[in-house]
Amino acid sequence: MGLLVVGSLGLDTVETPFDRVENALGGSAVYISISAGYFSGPIYMVGVVGDDFPKNYMKVLENHNVDLDGLQIVKGGKTFRWSGKYHYDLNVRDTLLTELNVFESFNPVIPDKYKKSKFVCLGNIDPTLQIKVLDQMDSPNFVVCDTMNYWIEGKRDDLLKLLKRVNVLIINDSEARLLAHEPNLIKAAKQIIELGPEYLIIKKGEHGALLFANDTIFSAPAYPLEMIYDPTGAGDTFAGGFIGYLHKTQDLSSENMKKAVVYGSALASFCVEKFSTKALEDLNYLRVHDRYREFLDLSKFDE
Amino acid sequence: MGLLVVGSLGLDTVETPFDRVENALGGSAVYISISAGYFSGPIYMVGVVGDDFPKNYMKVLENHNVDLDGLQIVKGGKTFRWSGKYHYDLNVRDTLLTELNVFESFNPVIPDKYKKSKFVCLGNIDPTLQIKVLDQMDSPNFVVCDTMNYWIEGKRDDLLKLLKRVNVLIINDSEARLLAHEPNLIKAAKQIIELGPEYLIIKKGEHGALLFANDTIFSAPAYPLEMIYDPTGAGDTFAGGFIGYLHKTQDLSSENMKKAVVYGSALASFCVEKFSTKALEDLNYLRVHDRYREFLDLSKFDE
Repeated sequence: MGLLVVGSLGLDTVETPFDRVENALGGSAVYISISAGYFSGPIYMVGVVGDDFPKNYMKVLENHNVDLDGLQIVKGGKTFRWSGKYHYDLNVRDTLLTELNVFESFNPVIPDKYKKSKFVCLGNIDPTLQIKVLDQMDSPNFVVCDTMNYWIEGKRDDLLKLLKRVNVLIINDSEARLLAHEPNLIKAAKQIIELGPEYLIIKKGEHGALLFANDTIFSAPAYPLEMIYDPTGAGDTFAGGFIGYLHKTQDLSSENMKKAVVYGSALASFCVEKFSTKALEDLNYLRVHDRYREFLDLSKFDE
Repeated sequence: MGLLVVGSLGLDTVETPFDRVENALGGSAVYISISAGYFSGPIYMVGVVGDDFPKNYMKVLENHNVDLDGLQIVKGGKTFRWSGKYHYDLNVRDTLLTELNVFESFNPVIPDKYKKSKFVCLGNIDPTLQIKVLDQMDSPNFVVCDTMNYWIEGKRDDLLKLLKRVNVLIINDSEARLLAHEPNLIKAAKQIIELGPEYLIIKKGEHGALLFANDTIFSAPAYPLEMIYDPTGAGDTFAGGFIGYLHKTQDLSSENMKKAVVYGSALASFCVEKFSTKALEDLNYLRVHDRYREFLDLSKFDE
């Protein structure tokens, strides 16, 4: 049974202190799908593009276990475009342009063959749409969801409704603080768990990630990268690796959830090594597993 | 054989959003010594105070395995005073007052019985004085040293001379970036290792700590604290726990160094739970070891 992924597809123009790319393959659904595709397939991707979306980008997705039957192609429409510029400190970026285009009226329609999926990954889109996706599913038993400051502030009520229906919420540290109105991250996490999700993952970029459940906290290290070319998509790639590993192993225990966090971190550490999806495109399971082992070495100490 | 600790002793007035203390026991030598004293003794502490330094603070030190024969008490002199105010985000603090007093002309004189110490912890003081300490020692075989932005910028040449004589440098992330003139922390660490120290520890506060050697990187998690009352002294407490554990075990292997980083982190996690040295004062080895086990649970994942 495929893994359902819903999110954005876009053409990204990204500038960093090192280089610049134009109209590169991007969007949350893209990063999640390619990343998850290294673990298991098919990936049932639902999203929307215009008919300007390059054919070779379709090929990249197909080559990574992504089924495109759920991709809406709007005739005469323009694909979502985003442009950003990273500073020398790559944690800081300016958004130069956001053209929603066909994404503005995106209405996720789940094809019948996708509805039986048991694993669902809701990329960062309007929580109203995320709910609409869940309403169309037969009986998913594992739902992972991402969101952002924009929805936490602007669509709080819908987001709170959604959180009662998801198993794992993945957000970053500033989003967690905003969602809980609490500066202490550990307190914030406990409050968010009360809102519905069984698990909360807080991404901290170069400082790793934290996994919270009712009775557990797990701290995953960050991979020590000497060169980060382009942080775009790292968070989505993390989510894809996380759910992809769980979908492959079909084991939803806490211990396996921790492994999934490290696999997500491993995929994200590859993502930032080149522009756009380039570094993700030519991975293989062996390289992913080797990096997993490096995370083990990095964080292991004796009793 | 005792563990030599050199650094400041002071009277701290600290304000946080939660409370305020006046003229509390403080200073790098104090935090390092009390922390190290939980592992082994005696702690040979070298520092200076005025005769206004409260007798009960002497008692606190003596009760924690600290030998005071190396403590200079300047008649008619005033003890070093520091005052700071922490913001709601406890990572941000303003220094309200620094009165060096007797610390301004501190000349560390190592008593004869201390000179044979094999383990030396140089708290954050002028690198010229840190060198002076080493010059008085017979043949220390393990030297740990702390420093800060002020010396990195103002006494760079002396600091570079010192680094060739230390085994472990402990600094925070911004100090590492400044010392190496390199924004990427991993690159910065590699460059600092080239300057002399076998090991570099980078403290990242609420994000844990990194241990670097030529061929190893180890990432220690931070303890998930829901309440931080007073971050003052956490870094010194870390250093004390680190060297105290190594002094106790007399094992300088990489694997034991990793354990020492976690013991240092454990001690630091207690330190911030109350004002000044209060939380450190009534620990015992069992509680320290229990917290060490919590660090294990926090970061462990399966192969």
